[in-house]
Amino acid sequence: MLIFEGIESINVLVVGASQGIGLGFVRHLLCKERIGQIYATYRDRQQSKDLSALSAQYPDRLILISMDITDEEQIAQGIAQLRCKIDKLHLVLYCVGFLHEGNIQPEKSLQQLRADHLLRYFEVNSIGAVLLAKHVLPLLKHGDHSVFASISAKVGSIGDNQLGGWYGYRASKAALNMFMRTVAIEYSRKSPKTLVVVLHPGTTDTHLSQPFQRSVPSNKLFSVEQTVSQLLSVIEGLGSDDSGQFFSWDGSRLPW
Amino acid sequence: MLIFEGIESINVLVVGASQGIGLGFVRHLLCKERIGQIYATYRDRQQSKDLSALSAQYPDRLILISMDITDEEQIAQGIAQLRCKIDKLHLVLYCVGFLHEGNIQPEKSLQQLRADHLLRYFEVNSIGAVLLAKHVLPLLKHGDHSVFASISAKVGSIGDNQLGGWYGYRASKAALNMFMRTVAIEYSRKSPKTLVVVLHPGTTDTHLSQPFQRSVPSNKLFSVEQTVSQLLSVIEGLGSDDSGQFFSWDGSRLPW
Repeated sequence: MLIFEGIESINVLVVGASQGIGLGFVRHLLCKERIGQIYATYRDRQQSKDLSALSAQYPDRLILISMDITDEEQIAQGIAQLRCKIDKLHLVLYCVGFLHEGNIQPEKSLQQLRADHLLRYFEVNSIGAVLLAKHVLPLLKHGDHSVFASISAKVGSIGDNQLGGWYGYRASKAALNMFMRTVAIEYSRKSPKTLVVVLHPGTTDTHLSQPFQRSVPSNKLFSVEQTVSQLLSVIEGLGSDDSGQFFSWDGSRLPW
Repeated sequence: MLIFEGIESINVLVVGASQGIGLGFVRHLLCKERIGQIYATYRDRQQSKDLSALSAQYPDRLILISMDITDEEQIAQGIAQLRCKIDKLHLVLYCVGFLHEGNIQPEKSLQQLRADHLLRYFEVNSIGAVLLAKHVLPLLKHGDHSVFASISAKVGSIGDNQLGGWYGYRASKAALNMFMRTVAIEYSRKSPKTLVVVLHPGTTDTHLSQPFQRSVPSNKLFSVEQTVSQLLSVIEGLGSDDSGQFFSWDGSRLPW
């Protein structure tokens, strides 16, 4: 990993690791020799069977932390737990996010908007990430290079929006992008070697995209393994000017 | 007004008219002959003395409507009231927004973030506008030109953000911009002659900017009258390609 060159043992925190891309990162990174410890958070143990199985298989390298990112107290406690064990994180991956959940479906038109659903999109997809950035900073201020990357989405690009619809999801990802751009500026003063980026993973074969995969050409639908490997290549290739930017899975820059 | 050319009597809805820029629009438009009726909303009658005084002065042209935009039922009822009186609106101005309120202050750093404050920013500055867009559409589908303009802010431009801070306000304005861009796309199909734009008013001498005016050079601090007159010039000059865009007070386009 170019950005992590010279670091012997890379410590990683994956937030939202019980399924999808978050779980994919954990699985992929466990196979990499240079990765030291992986801390992985889950909200609901019942929904985290695959993650629990991995942690039974790698008890020394994978440590699970219970964390509902809509409760700041749980974020604070989770990070406090982490700080008892290590003093450095090199890579933080925010992988929490939803497009549909229970009776919340992405809105096809204005008629389907509901204020409580919109608030839920912001709470989970935007606010959780910036609260994490608030609490995790002390673990990133160690003088080595580090990266805080959040999974955003191209549909969260305002300039790129030509199709409309999906009001809550789009606006929550635009808000996430603004939060992370603002975090990048604050981190550049307080922890200058930490880069903060937002990433578009491409449509990935997960629970999130499942109801919408029919309209995606098969060569544009990535497996989870392909996506995490592509996103890690983007992260590895980051340079110090790249903090505060929005990257696609192929390393190209996306418009805000 | 170029965009409204040929329309004899222009009906306007100003949402958030009890103070600041919203009140300024009402005051300014009352002096224009071509403006027919002005519907102006307020949340709290106690805080709307100037607006009430104006409506006593112009009882036939200025009609007040009680509306708390954080309660969708009140938006629906307010619009229903309006539809009993008129069947056409030509100009809708969303002027609700806050930067500080009670114990909520714009955050200077991550340490000052609180989830409940962030949610409040989204509720007022972003969600209210898109709920209004949901309910007001039937009044805009009349075949004449019409404009739905929301007051945004340059600090809500992600690409323009170099200074950091003000997390909640910035993200809520970025979310507003995404909502309005998405509304522009839906309206272009359902009401093709309605243009939807977001506007940066410049720093204006109102309650909102009051605590931050010291750092603003005096020639960059606009009176309310100057701001509303500048913004109305921008609106008057809009062309059909301008829907879904973000304009500054001088008519220039801002980056997302």
